[in-house]
Amino acid sequence: MDTPQDPRSGRLRKAPESFLDAGGIATVMQQARSGRRDFLRGAFAAAAAGATAPVALAQKAVGEGEAAILELPEHTRGLGQPVVTDGYGKPSKYEANVQRRQSPGLTQTRQASVSFAPLQSLFGIVTPSGLHFERHHQGWWDIDPSQHRLMVNGMVKTPKVFTMDEIMRLPSQSRFHFIECGANTGMEWGNVAVPTVQYSHGMLSCSEFTGVPLITLLEMAGADLKNGKFLLAEGADGSSMTRTIPMSLVRSGEVLVAYGQNGEMLRPENGYPLRLVVPGVQGVSWVKYLRRIEVGDQPYGSKDEVLHYVDLMPDGTHRQYTSIQECKSVVTTPSGGQVLLDKGFYSISGLAWSGRGKIRHVDVSVDGGRNWRRARLQGPVMDKCLTRFSIDWAWDGKPAIVQSRATDETGYVQPTYRQLREVRGSRSIYHNNAIQSWLVQENGEVRNVQLA
Amino acid sequence: MDTPQDPRSGRLRKAPESFLDAGGIATVMQQARSGRRDFLRGAFAAAAAGATAPVALAQKAVGEGEAAILELPEHTRGLGQPVVTDGYGKPSKYEANVQRRQSPGLTQTRQASVSFAPLQSLFGIVTPSGLHFERHHQGWWDIDPSQHRLMVNGMVKTPKVFTMDEIMRLPSQSRFHFIECGANTGMEWGNVAVPTVQYSHGMLSCSEFTGVPLITLLEMAGADLKNGKFLLAEGADGSSMTRTIPMSLVRSGEVLVAYGQNGEMLRPENGYPLRLVVPGVQGVSWVKYLRRIEVGDQPYGSKDEVLHYVDLMPDGTHRQYTSIQECKSVVTTPSGGQVLLDKGFYSISGLAWSGRGKIRHVDVSVDGGRNWRRARLQGPVMDKCLTRFSIDWAWDGKPAIVQSRATDETGYVQPTYRQLREVRGSRSIYHNNAIQSWLVQENGEVRNVQLA
Repeated sequence: MDTPQDPRSGRLRKAPESFLDAGGIATVMQQARSGRRDFLRGAFAAAAAGATAPVALAQKAVGEGEAAILELPEHTRGLGQPVVTDGYGKPSKYEANVQRRQSPGLTQTRQASVSFAPLQSLFGIVTPSGLHFERHHQGWWDIDPSQHRLMVNGMVKTPKVFTMDEIMRLPSQSRFHFIECGANTGMEWGNVAVPTVQYSHGMLSCSEFTGVPLITLLEMAGADLKNGKFLLAEGADGSSMTRTIPMSLVRSGEVLVAYGQNGEMLRPENGYPLRLVVPGVQGVSWVKYLRRIEVGDQPYGSKDEVLHYVDLMPDGTHRQYTSIQECKSVVTTPSGGQVLLDKGFYSISGLAWSGRGKIRHVDVSVDGGRNWRRARLQGPVMDKCLTRFSIDWAWDGKPAIVQSRATDETGYVQPTYRQLREVRGSRSIYHNNAIQSWLVQENGEVRNVQLA
Repeated sequence: MDTPQDPRSGRLRKAPESFLDAGGIATVMQQARSGRRDFLRGAFAAAAAGATAPVALAQKAVGEGEAAILELPEHTRGLGQPVVTDGYGKPSKYEANVQRRQSPGLTQTRQASVSFAPLQSLFGIVTPSGLHFERHHQGWWDIDPSQHRLMVNGMVKTPKVFTMDEIMRLPSQSRFHFIECGANTGMEWGNVAVPTVQYSHGMLSCSEFTGVPLITLLEMAGADLKNGKFLLAEGADGSSMTRTIPMSLVRSGEVLVAYGQNGEMLRPENGYPLRLVVPGVQGVSWVKYLRRIEVGDQPYGSKDEVLHYVDLMPDGTHRQYTSIQECKSVVTTPSGGQVLLDKGFYSISGLAWSGRGKIRHVDVSVDGGRNWRRARLQGPVMDKCLTRFSIDWAWDGKPAIVQSRATDETGYVQPTYRQLREVRGSRSIYHNNAIQSWLVQENGEVRNVQLA
């Protein structure tokens, strides 16, 4: 596969630059006090490091003289940029390499394609909306919300068509949930070890979603909640995306008709102005540009659930409606494409999630699964949400295989590839939740390996 | 004050557009089945509403004929936009009015100014980083992280200068916290009822911050944690921002040297690449472009803590070092500048927070404080973090005064203006946490009023 390798691995790749130790600082200050500004200028011109702080300190020590002021960086001397009121804020120019990326060999057109989130560069659990993974079936649209409607029909007493204003006036909920494409980590079924965690696990994101519980709209339409055991969710884009949602998921109030994501309106790539949020379920069921909900009494068997998003089993049959994303985890630092330049301390960090509930714990191995240690979980641990874990590690410079293994609150344990293949074979595309292995080589380079 | 009134109040201002009820849908379908496409075309041309869903339904009913296809909106017929891999994602063009805004009369230059977050348009608790409020003292900078350094000196065994790589290699924490400028709601001290919640309360934001506990860096430098009772935090921009931080806040591990915000690196306006996170404390102490931490044994009395950010008391003295943001709340919907066009159901929604811990509960009044009802809190309720509350309300079309009153886990209750002024007078700028009142007039217009 022609996957460009473009990890933002600068954090690990770069050697810790030489910096002033206690002796150096004392020398600088002593020299500064004695007025030897030439020393200062020479020292800092020679240093690869810009050394903002020591320069400023030196400047303070030598007084306000012109020569010393010349040493200060522009941002300490000058007037900065004005408040940003004429546009939407953007990341630093130094972060331009942190982007969603497409895998050119994977899809035929960029409108029916995937862009992967740069998991190796992300912190915590929130995915910035500007970096949220995308999966489009016929491209994305920026639909005028004043023209958008949501119809609720089928087994209902009173079919309804809602405007956005009507939906946004109703009581809403805001909840943090992960969304993962059912095809995430799909290449690995075929033993293709894609180089970075962006490509292996990047069809995964997490946001605070805001919307109206779907059950509220169903009740307003007088839906038959007893016999109406299934729903059809339909999107407004040209892909005719339709998915069956079991009413059992909706009754609890958990499924949202969402318009908000991370505090603002959904992004166009993610279904603006309305998408379904089906916590724990694969992303394709979170229908974007949602325009219709139909209540019925049997699964709809739409093309996107009988031809696609099915699991080919070893005996040649395929499983349908396997929508819930089982417990899974991955180490994001260190991960494929990154380089550890020296021995010593590292904080191994990663993400864990389960479509069945909360993460109970995560274990980490640095020897390919022979020994495991319990990782720290960053709270609050939320339901069907990413959980950040971390553990301390002193690398001895020898080859190491780093893995994580998550357990969810149901007691389900993330499987090894061997365990997964015993049940599912190796010809699937979807629903690969096996333990990921990263090989740290003696030269510090980290690469993706698959253990038998 | 010459404050432009520019609330994004479309959601409430716009009348619910006429939409097809059950009878209308039945008629459309019946007409469609009988092939009367002229009716369809006429009906939808006449309707102000684009009525995506019904059109699509009609198209399905009349078959795939050309005439019917012409009725479909472009986004249902065409090929959309490709995946976004050549830039950072942006909000919908229809959300262009959701922006930070400056109050022109408030500050003399745009480099030493404020931009307010559009609270009236936000959901949940996360503030999108592109809309995070700003307060600059000498403008913002985009500092090269490879050149940035953090010095730790003063009462330490071994002064240290850290590179970003060294800091980011250490064990980190990610936590959701609010940040509020000490001057938020400052105009209201003078009985100036600024028109919208963006201007009255918009120096408030909330993010998931990621960084290294400051205590870790202090321990690495061998800081005297017993006698070193105070820290000086210094920024690298030209404003020479320096703030005293009590060591007592640092010892718990709560104070972070942060590089991450909402999953990615800090934004330049918010201190990229490094800022202090001091949960519960006013924003000015969250020093941006952090370049130095000095350990000392007494408060530093810097200009920004003895001349600014002090509270002028009725007796002419002023209070210093009143840094903790006390318990506060505000209703964001409905709020000033919005218009309720009809009687009936509304979901009153707002935000509550406390620098002392978690929110215990929020009460809401629609009659100016005579009667109170307990609001729903959206979980998880986190420490020193925004909490979203909501409550149902059926507006009877008569004048109403909407208020919220928060209580934190210490039992502290948000005061009325009368209570606040009894202690603090009316000549302050900072630390106004009084109950906010929004008057809903008979014509539905909402405006800011101050009750005695």
